[in-house]
Amino acid sequence: MAVIDGKALAETIKLEIREEVLLLKEQRKNIPHLAAVLIGNNPASESYVKSKVRSCEHVGFESTLIRKDDSITEQELLDIVKDLNEEEDIDGFIVQLPLPKHIDEQKVTLAIDPKKDVDGFHPVNFGRMAQGLPCYLPATPFGILTMLERYKVETEGKHCVVLGRSNIVGSPMSILLSRKAYPGNCTVTLVHSRTKDLSAEIKRADIVIAAIGIPHFVTADMVKEGAVIIDVGINRVEDDSRRRGYRLVGDVEYDAVSSKASLITPVPGGVGPMTVTSLLLNTLSASKKEIYS
Amino acid sequence: MAVIDGKALAETIKLEIREEVLLLKEQRKNIPHLAAVLIGNNPASESYVKSKVRSCEHVGFESTLIRKDDSITEQELLDIVKDLNEEEDIDGFIVQLPLPKHIDEQKVTLAIDPKKDVDGFHPVNFGRMAQGLPCYLPATPFGILTMLERYKVETEGKHCVVLGRSNIVGSPMSILLSRKAYPGNCTVTLVHSRTKDLSAEIKRADIVIAAIGIPHFVTADMVKEGAVIIDVGINRVEDDSRRRGYRLVGDVEYDAVSSKASLITPVPGGVGPMTVTSLLLNTLSASKKEIYS
Repeated sequence: MAVIDGKALAETIKLEIREEVLLLKEQRKNIPHLAAVLIGNNPASESYVKSKVRSCEHVGFESTLIRKDDSITEQELLDIVKDLNEEEDIDGFIVQLPLPKHIDEQKVTLAIDPKKDVDGFHPVNFGRMAQGLPCYLPATPFGILTMLERYKVETEGKHCVVLGRSNIVGSPMSILLSRKAYPGNCTVTLVHSRTKDLSAEIKRADIVIAAIGIPHFVTADMVKEGAVIIDVGINRVEDDSRRRGYRLVGDVEYDAVSSKASLITPVPGGVGPMTVTSLLLNTLSASKKEIYS
Repeated sequence: MAVIDGKALAETIKLEIREEVLLLKEQRKNIPHLAAVLIGNNPASESYVKSKVRSCEHVGFESTLIRKDDSITEQELLDIVKDLNEEEDIDGFIVQLPLPKHIDEQKVTLAIDPKKDVDGFHPVNFGRMAQGLPCYLPATPFGILTMLERYKVETEGKHCVVLGRSNIVGSPMSILLSRKAYPGNCTVTLVHSRTKDLSAEIKRADIVIAAIGIPHFVTADMVKEGAVIIDVGINRVEDDSRRRGYRLVGDVEYDAVSSKASLITPVPGGVGPMTVTSLLLNTLSASKKEIYS
């Protein structure tokens, strides 16, 4: 069994991006510029956004953080989005979700210019992804593809089971691993809460992508010997031995499953750190106008 | 075994649309108006477009056929698309594919206003479909969903195997049958040319969607007793006994498979007639501004 070290891989990729940015500076070219919009004081959102901004600084990107109180109206937020769409100096931006209840998240997502939608949430980017056209890939699926690629995981003809059908992980992951490309060309089964015999389905998989949001859902008896296990879950479970009263666990019962897997991602330190990397790669791509001219 | 009579179902739906159009006329409301652009003299394209225009007339829609010689330049075609986008009287339009080689099909598809993209080929509509947002569904998948619905096929928790991963049938079909809706909530496996043991995969299916484009690919030994078989293939095979020298067959060996299936679509007369119905339903929806305001 080998472990996919997402934290180390993310650092490697950040170094590569940093080198490229240094080169852009030398050539007096456009330096990638990411803006992030943070509404309210949700501690998780705050921590995500800060980590994104810090990563930008780390690789030499310019960054702008726009913070607003959660009393902001929908129209005021839409105006900010409009300004960011028009601001030539900004290559890409994200609006951190969730938004306060009085704001329609879908309306805000649809208002973002697809050219600057480095989160890859706009239907145009999602549709382009599904149709195999150049696009900004959503962060988590992009991070997983990068992992599979860098760890040289053979995917062609492999049976892959994707557990969970969310718009941000399961559904795009099933689409991407089915496509005629590497990583891809898998035979993909997408399973979910309505699937009849989840265990039997997972047992058939050469590659398991667990994104169901239930702590330790995937147990050793469900997994085929030698399978590759990608654990997307980040679940809090109570743990009095920790100062903060909880610890983070994945959707996979790591200790038992890892002894059967050929390759596995830990939680934390697996898929998580790769999502910020994806955002940086999309922003770099936006600044070079690789997707949209 | 029962047969899904696509031809009869399409007629039923056309009658329903016709009734609705009569009502719209009585109420002096907007009558749906579809435009079709046909470039060159490809006999298959010509026959498809004519059938679409005829169906419009049949249900009481207004229709406009724009025919151009295949010497048309890409820019001239893009100008036609622009005019159709702007023409208020046109609710939806299609540009019949394939286009002559000197024209970039993707560029033309992307130029169509998603609001009028009743073929559902624009990435915005494809992405909205994949994200579960209101959209124009692509014709063939929409037709298949309608069949499953009208024949009250139970789909929840069923194992569905989609054979073929094209952008117009296999890929969207796999997405739609996975979604949390009816028809849907299936456990879907998308199989294709790189799948290792196609027969074994198909054998597990309660519902088979065959869209691989190979005549008689699915044989009786591959199919589970009692499966529902949807045959999307329309393949020409030589047949000297026919005046035109060929006959149309599906991707499924109909005679043998039908004796094991609980429900099956014939070719011709199955999925084929339903695609025009989908186009009419999308156009009706466009005229009522149900998707985009």
